[in-house]
Amino acid sequence: MNFIAMNRFKVSVEGADDFEDMWRSRESRLKEVPGFKEFRLLKGAEDEGIRTYSSHVIWDSKADFENWTQSEHFRDAHKNVGKSKGRSAIMGPPKFEGFETILQED
Amino acid sequence: MNFIAMNRFKVSVEGADDFEDMWRSRESRLKEVPGFKEFRLLKGAEDEGIRTYSSHVIWDSKADFENWTQSEHFRDAHKNVGKSKGRSAIMGPPKFEGFETILQED
Repeated sequence: MNFIAMNRFKVSVEGADDFEDMWRSRESRLKEVPGFKEFRLLKGAEDEGIRTYSSHVIWDSKADFENWTQSEHFRDAHKNVGKSKGRSAIMGPPKFEGFETILQED
Repeated sequence: MNFIAMNRFKVSVEGADDFEDMWRSRESRLKEVPGFKEFRLLKGAEDEGIRTYSSHVIWDSKADFENWTQSEHFRDAHKNVGKSKGRSAIMGPPKFEGFETILQED
């Protein structure tokens, strides 16, 4: 079944708008990537001035995700992140977790 | 946009099959609930004999989720959990997090 790649970000509340703008304005070409199914940027709770965000990308399989991380497309998608204003709102490195869907109802 | 309710479970590797069976064999009536969109049970990484699982339920809105938690349907769905073998494989209480979808591509 599907593989879900999640990255969790801790963002200062002052920089949350810049962080969201960075995602909204990015030029996403995920739809061109084999095995891509769905992307979501999720806004979580705020605690003591820090808000949790999580990006979820659903892939047909873990292999599709891994192929993407080794592709030119992936490098292109990440090359400008370090320069953006939204990037500086992120506190510490994102935390990655991969999950396999074992049961689904919709 | 959508609301995603997640619960994170830490499960002993010895009990992981029982935990999965508990979910697979449960009688889910989520499809009957207003605002329900999608359910997934996700299997994450294992670390020192403990595996992370996460349940994701996507709702049309946070209000739909909250209405469900106060419904008879919710009480029915949870009343037998404490007795099951899969339940005893869970280490500590599940950790709940709610997220709002702010950006989506599919």
